[in-house]
Amino acid sequence: MADTVLFEFLHTEMVAELWAHDPDPGPGVSAGLRGEETGATKGQKMSLSVLEGMGFRVGQALGERLPRETLAFREELDVLKFLCKDLWVAVFQKQMDSLRTNHQGTYVLQDNSFPLLLPMASGLQYLEEAPKFLAFTCGLLRGALYTLGIESVVTASVAALPVCKFQVVIPKS
Amino acid sequence: MADTVLFEFLHTEMVAELWAHDPDPGPGVSAGLRGEETGATKGQKMSLSVLEGMGFRVGQALGERLPRETLAFREELDVLKFLCKDLWVAVFQKQMDSLRTNHQGTYVLQDNSFPLLLPMASGLQYLEEAPKFLAFTCGLLRGALYTLGIESVVTASVAALPVCKFQVVIPKS
Repeated sequence: MADTVLFEFLHTEMVAELWAHDPDPGPGVSAGLRGEETGATKGQKMSLSVLEGMGFRVGQALGERLPRETLAFREELDVLKFLCKDLWVAVFQKQMDSLRTNHQGTYVLQDNSFPLLLPMASGLQYLEEAPKFLAFTCGLLRGALYTLGIESVVTASVAALPVCKFQVVIPKS
Repeated sequence: MADTVLFEFLHTEMVAELWAHDPDPGPGVSAGLRGEETGATKGQKMSLSVLEGMGFRVGQALGERLPRETLAFREELDVLKFLCKDLWVAVFQKQMDSLRTNHQGTYVLQDNSFPLLLPMASGLQYLEEAPKFLAFTCGLLRGALYTLGIESVVTASVAALPVCKFQVVIPKS
């Protein structure tokens, strides 16, 4: 049991520590690579970017360690399914709840009960606090994808806690 | 498998991030509450202290969550045994290798193959780097002890990688 909570406790501490130097909360509810649209302060954008970078490197490392049934995935969609199932179970002990795609390189991964948001009371009043709890995981997805040979842009959004949507955009190469 | 490596990857990233702002390594090989004797710079002492604090809070939280066979431990030594066995297994998937005491409030917990030091090559050349990989765990022990009703001072030392000794001193109240 402690494995799961250990990761969650550590993640909480990491967010708190990075935020300690810039405690003013921004009004945005998006997290990810770019913080322009969130209205976050410069320090907060830096913290989001640091968290995203940490997530990226952990995702890269996990991507290398996770057992893969097939060494080569046939299609992009197979890779995304792998993340929704295997990566999510490895990190959060649950699968992603849904995966949708426009078949043009955009994927929306939805977790109806995202563990890193669960400690926050549901409702609207804490929505502003959500971005800092999503940046690491955006990086985690981007890093795992990178290890599997796919460059992407990953952002997250929350409309109502603890439901969370991760949007993965894979530019046409 | 990923649970273990997830914690270790995240710990590595956390240490790297906190050190990024003060990359100059100090010559010391002790970590813990006090950094005076290590020759660490002011920024490094701050980073050690931040890591120790994060470990303390995670240890406190884990101490509350770990199942205890007996709600009240009879003796101090029982609490220390609990940490060596249950806490260590929960965090590192292994037990501490030995526990010694002078029966006057000082305990030495030895891990012959401390997981957070394993990624470093063994030998003497990396000894200087060791303190930053021990501070979090010093805090973890102190936090778990605190939850169990014992105030302590925890320090760590490394004579040869990856063997690590944690010294717990419990002042007479």
